[in-house]
Amino acid sequence: MATIKDVAKDSGVSLGTVSKVINGLHVREDSRLKVEASIKKLNYKVNLNARGLKAQRTNDIAVIVPTMENSFFTLLIDNIEKELTSRGKRMLICISRNDKHKINSYIEMARNSKVDGIFGVSYSNIRNSLLQDMPFVSFDRHFGGSIPCISSDNYMGGYLAANVLYSKGSKKLLCFWTGSDKTSEPYKRIDGFKEFCHTSHIACGVITHTDFDQTDTDMMYASEMFRNMVRKEVASIVRDGKCVYDGIFASSDHLAYLIKQELASYGIDVPKDVQIVGFDGIPVRGVGKPIVSSIQQSVESIAAAGVDVLMKLIDEGSAESNITIPVEFVDGGTTR
Amino acid sequence: MATIKDVAKDSGVSLGTVSKVINGLHVREDSRLKVEASIKKLNYKVNLNARGLKAQRTNDIAVIVPTMENSFFTLLIDNIEKELTSRGKRMLICISRNDKHKINSYIEMARNSKVDGIFGVSYSNIRNSLLQDMPFVSFDRHFGGSIPCISSDNYMGGYLAANVLYSKGSKKLLCFWTGSDKTSEPYKRIDGFKEFCHTSHIACGVITHTDFDQTDTDMMYASEMFRNMVRKEVASIVRDGKCVYDGIFASSDHLAYLIKQELASYGIDVPKDVQIVGFDGIPVRGVGKPIVSSIQQSVESIAAAGVDVLMKLIDEGSAESNITIPVEFVDGGTTR
Repeated sequence: MATIKDVAKDSGVSLGTVSKVINGLHVREDSRLKVEASIKKLNYKVNLNARGLKAQRTNDIAVIVPTMENSFFTLLIDNIEKELTSRGKRMLICISRNDKHKINSYIEMARNSKVDGIFGVSYSNIRNSLLQDMPFVSFDRHFGGSIPCISSDNYMGGYLAANVLYSKGSKKLLCFWTGSDKTSEPYKRIDGFKEFCHTSHIACGVITHTDFDQTDTDMMYASEMFRNMVRKEVASIVRDGKCVYDGIFASSDHLAYLIKQELASYGIDVPKDVQIVGFDGIPVRGVGKPIVSSIQQSVESIAAAGVDVLMKLIDEGSAESNITIPVEFVDGGTTR
Repeated sequence: MATIKDVAKDSGVSLGTVSKVINGLHVREDSRLKVEASIKKLNYKVNLNARGLKAQRTNDIAVIVPTMENSFFTLLIDNIEKELTSRGKRMLICISRNDKHKINSYIEMARNSKVDGIFGVSYSNIRNSLLQDMPFVSFDRHFGGSIPCISSDNYMGGYLAANVLYSKGSKKLLCFWTGSDKTSEPYKRIDGFKEFCHTSHIACGVITHTDFDQTDTDMMYASEMFRNMVRKEVASIVRDGKCVYDGIFASSDHLAYLIKQELASYGIDVPKDVQIVGFDGIPVRGVGKPIVSSIQQSVESIAAAGVDVLMKLIDEGSAESNITIPVEFVDGGTTR
């Protein structure tokens, strides 16, 4: 098995530089690239058993989220906290705001055994090499290798959305997507959506905006720029007071809600004229349903599965790498 | 100065029991009461300088909140996190769900120097004796003694709400209160409201429900029980299709929003027939205004002042005890 010395020799940099790269500290970009190439080439692995398992447990788990301005994340954090508390663990919150340095500082904490592990609810770029052989569980983003990823069944979610719209009478479907790009796990929703339309031989359009991130997908917090984009896109699919599509699948409940409002401004009725299905399905308390018809992610199951896998990783050094959580359709009044 | 031995002698219990009480661990109720009485009588104080200041800093701060299901708390946490990060500190979150044991476990962490201090955004009962001479800053709740409390100018907030309603034409005012009871800092809003009505010689009614806590005051998460209560109360102030009051001050924006919806179901228009002013004033992004006209708390100032005072307490052992943050009126469309 390759050692840290082999990596240093192969990449032609000092041991200290290799150590810095492994521990997520700053080194010159060219050195980092060399070290990462050697790590890959030599298949070097930090020995988690040797290092981590014997170290003292702190019972602290760090949770990284990009923002608090999104009720899906808030609800997920709330459920992760419940799961951790029931296991006698505490939760540190890192609100990353997509800041690489902040994320790296938390990863470093895990490496220094100041926290036992990390639950990364983050869409930011973290270098894979940083996470190898570390107790790290990801939500909705694959880092490859042995890093477990928990995600809702995004492909089936998109498929189900199209299926529901079609079986409730819509014949021309649109997928309206804002969020992360093709490389992301949630993007599979579009693939599932297209697949249903394709096999059912129905018309299907796609609008994608990958320049907006999760920070912008909350009804309460949507920025003016986001609202303007929705306004413009809806204007482009309305002709002579009618919508070109009669069924829309939106990438979030809040986007679905904004689309509904925009259509209303043209006198287009939802769900009579156009049916809309969102994604997330956070139930409004006391109502029990989301604000729109939606493909519901189970935050309870995501939190439970994520914490389970993380604990296994901490205690045993390895765990299953991918866990997919089923989704289901919930009627929220924007479908017939 | 009294020592821990003096307290044990005076209360007639063992040193170990006194220590447990001081450190927030469980002891028999009668023993606890005896120890607390002696602590008060002898004016015993843990020597923070001797104990805390020399201990190693962890740079971790615990923040206790009752719930995440309230956008005011979420926004406040977000701002506290910003303040802590800018000072190189990390944030541990304790979602107390009003569970005494959870709160005590975090206080114990602070006592054991596992965190440097606590920002308690909590309305739960914490025994004063636990917090004496500990780096603890409270939001919206006075614990007396040397424990700093940060709060918005609640009295002025209530006064301002009444003043705004009156100066915009309302002549019969109602204060609709749900939340913590008379002993709480926010309750002063009612006092300020009444004071304005009294000095201005205008009619003024008050509805109070102290059986609901902050968990229930979010539009997105209001429970069915809460909604039913609002429905019933609104029914009680509507006669022959008209509202008995023409100006309502609600204890939160979300309550204000629910009242507006209820009035609408009777065909009563807001703000034409009835003006409503809420409290909190969380601005909707991209809109810049809250969902209702409101008395706005400055979460940025609350977070900055709270973290400032906490740092002073940690570094110097003492800090100013009460800081009041100014509030202001923000038009959100429910006033004329």
